[in-house]
Parts: sequence; structure tokens; C-alpha cells
Amino acid sequence: MKTSLSTQDNTTRAPTAAVILIGNELLSGRTQDINLQYIANKLATHGITLRETRIIPDDEAVVVEAVNVLRNANDYVFTTGGIGPTHDDITADCISSAFGVALPIHPVAEQLLLAFFQERDIEPNEDRMRMARIPEGGKLIDNPISAAPGFNIGNVFVLAGVPRIMQAMFDSILPSLRKGPVIQSVSVTCNLGEGTLAAPLRELQARYPMLDLGSYPGKFDGAPRVMLVARGTDIDAMSQIEEELKKLVASLGGDIEQPA
Amino acid sequence: MKTSLSTQDNTTRAPTAAVILIGNELLSGRTQDINLQYIANKLATHGITLRETRIIPDDEAVVVEAVNVLRNANDYVFTTGGIGPTHDDITADCISSAFGVALPIHPVAEQLLLAFFQERDIEPNEDRMRMARIPEGGKLIDNPISAAPGFNIGNVFVLAGVPRIMQAMFDSILPSLRKGPVIQSVSVTCNLGEGTLAAPLRELQARYPMLDLGSYPGKFDGAPRVMLVARGTDIDAMSQIEEELKKLVASLGGDIEQPA
Repeated sequence: MKTSLSTQDNTTRAPTAAVILIGNELLSGRTQDINLQYIANKLATHGITLRETRIIPDDEAVVVEAVNVLRNANDYVFTTGGIGPTHDDITADCISSAFGVALPIHPVAEQLLLAFFQERDIEPNEDRMRMARIPEGGKLIDNPISAAPGFNIGNVFVLAGVPRIMQAMFDSILPSLRKGPVIQSVSVTCNLGEGTLAAPLRELQARYPMLDLGSYPGKFDGAPRVMLVARGTDIDAMSQIEEELKKLVASLGGDIEQPA
Repeated sequence: MKTSLSTQDNTTRAPTAAVILIGNELLSGRTQDINLQYIANKLATHGITLRETRIIPDDEAVVVEAVNVLRNANDYVFTTGGIGPTHDDITADCISSAFGVALPIHPVAEQLLLAFFQERDIEPNEDRMRMARIPEGGKLIDNPISAAPGFNIGNVFVLAGVPRIMQAMFDSILPSLRKGPVIQSVSVTCNLGEGTLAAPLRELQARYPMLDLGSYPGKFDGAPRVMLVARGTDIDAMSQIEEELKKLVASLGGDIEQPA
């Protein structure tokens, strides 16, 4: 089992990704981010390994540094936030700096914005039209909600920060990304303590190196429980480890909780 | 106003911090982190500037690198997660590697755990007692809920991942941190578009460089609104900019929403 998976890894290595969440409001505690979990779930179900996320302020030097470090280390980088019309929306400027390219008005983006504003009797002032500036060589990412596009340059995808716009943009680029073997998970929730499970879990992880086995303490209907989760791409191994986890819990005198 | 604040900045520079959220479950989409917002809010109200957050997997090389980069760049680093008894709990090992020190059993941590387990008739097996391993020179951080302590070494504070334990640990170390001038905020929510507000906001930000002015589009009772937020330590400037923001909204024909 392990040998065949290793072979598969060598020939079709799963693509890797990093996410950069940009915005002072995420570091001040004002805003609870919900974009990461959306992106993380979609990447997992499409076999793309999310290796790191950085949450950084609206600070050009910091954004440029993070974009350059992470785009060199990963197959894909996704940024959220900072593409609106106001003075703190600096993501397009940062990306053009990071890639060393100009930031001209993109004629298609300009047309999209002008049409959107005209339909709604909104003045296409200078600040609104800043949203048509796209780093040279960038391809537009459609914004079906408020027209101002995201964009893709190199392996970097620049998305909105507003969750429903970000989600629409992300869904529209997903088909264009290279996929890896789908990462699936099985879980067994039980009423044993992590300390009781630790030694057999360590032994199980050693026997299933192709899977990522984790244990997560939490509450289940108000009572303390531990959820054992195995993640990976090897369906046969997943199904075997699920049976082993159930037997393990039973052998230690624990009960398995059924998902609600 | 600006001159006096600059002087203050030079003599009592606000301390800076970084947060490292450790755990595969945060990058797989399984778990929505809520620890960052708790820490971010408390840091802000105590005048400590949170400059960056990284979310990274249970991978020793990655954790060691992040800890070393961020502890050298900031006054404080807070980590969450990875201090339980199971094989994926590697944070103490990573911190001892990052600092180049041993990871012995800490006698006080050992006593705390033994007492906790004895009281509850829990077997103090080898995995549970791993939680008493503390990097040499580390000081314990009390865990009033499940005994297994966090620890502080150098400028790094290692906290649990379970939110209520993390919160208790964070609250217990907060009094020992150096504080900066308290960062406060004022906000004005209105029914104008960001594109309408952008030019006057840019001008306001230029006149109030000591404040951080942001605009955040969102829904307010289901209708699209923009919240204008000014953050900073200069109370007089905050109160002035709040008045200016209200006048600005009125002058542009907008309505101000009262907080619910």
C-alpha cells in the first residue's frame, strides 16, 4: 500500500497552496475571518495541500514580502482583501510591486465597471475606477456581485475580502487549478481521554504513514469527547483505519458517538 | 498633535506581537479558529500591536522556522495548539529545538499532573506525562481546567489550542506583558458607497496620520452599509475624527446608522 502511494506521489505530486488574508481589521480583532475555512475545505476536496496561511496588515512592504516568499514556495497563492476603492485597498499595488510590473487600467475591467455603475446611476469617479487597475499580464477573475474584478497573475490569485464575493471568485477559478488526488477523511468520536488513546494512536499512525491521523478534544452534546480523524488520499487505507479506530475504542472500553 | 504623539512613540514604543496558530485541522478546513480574535482583541485593548499571524501545520521544521523568524521580529510571540498528549502534539519539541535547549520533565508540572490525575482516578501513563516536558528555562503557565500547563520561554508564550483553556492561560499571562498606549476605536456606519467616500476618506487619513482609518462594507439589518473605523491611541484625535466622519456622511447626503 505504502509503496504504491509513494509511486503515485512521485508522478502526480499533489499541488500545494498558501493563503494570505490581508487586512488590519483581522489583526485588530474587529473582524472574525471566515474566508480561510471556505478556501481550505475546497482545496482539500480538490486534492490541493494548503501548507500555510498568513494574516497580515494593509502594509505594502509586508504584503510584497509575503507574496514573494509564498509564491516561490507553493504552486498556488490566494489572497483575500484590499481590492476595493478606498485608500486602505492596496493589494493590486502590492502585487504589481511583487511582480515588478506596471498597474495600468485594464480595458475590460474598465468596461465592466462603467457598465455596472451606469446601470445603477453610480458616478464612475476616480476612486471607483482604481478598481480597474490590474497588474500587467494579469487575467481578470469575474465578480458577479459588484463587478470589480479579482485577478490572476503567475500563480497568484487575488480575491475580494467580502465573503460572498470571495466565494464566487474562488469557485470560478477552481476549475482552472491543477488537482491532486482528493483528500478525504474519516472520523470516529468517542468518550475516551486523549491520554488513554495516545499510545495506540501513535502506533496506528506509524502503521499508516500515508494517512494523517489527528485527535481533537471537544464537547459533544455538552460532554467531553475526542474526535479521531484520519485524512488522506488512499481510500483503502482510510477504510481500514476507520475499522481499526472503532475496534480500538471498543477494546479500551469506550463508546462511539454517532454523528448527529 | 502629531508632534507630541511622535515623541511619545519614540520614548514608549508600543510593543509588537505575532501569533502562530498550530494545527493541521486549521489548514484542512475541519476547524474554524476562534483563538486569534480573542487574542487580537485583548492585545489591542492593552496597547500591544499584533503585526502578523501565521497558521501552520504540525510539522516540526515549519514550526521551528516560524517561531524563530517571529520571535526575532517581535516583542512577543503567542502560539496556540499542539501541547496535548498525542503524537501530533509536537509544540514543546519544536520550541525546545527553536531555542536549542533540552526538554526535560519539569518537576512542578509533573506534580500538578500527578495530583490532577490521582484526584480523577486517571492513569498517569507515559503519554499523559509527556505534557510535563517543558523546554529548559521555561516558566509554567497555569491551566486551571485540565492541569497540563503552557509555558513561557524568552519572549514566546505557548498556549493550549482548546479555546477555553487558551483563554484562561492568555488572561493569566496578560498582566506580565509590557503594555503600550491603549488602542481605541470609533466607528460610524452609514448608507453611502465606499466609492463615494473614498476621496474624502483619503484626505481625512492624510490629515490624521496618527490614526488608522479603515472602511468596511457589510450588511446592516440586511441592507448594504459601510462602517468607517478609526483606530489609534490619541483620544483627542479620535474624538475629532468621529465628528468629522459624521459631518462627512451628512455632507454627502448619507444617513448614520445607530448601533443596535
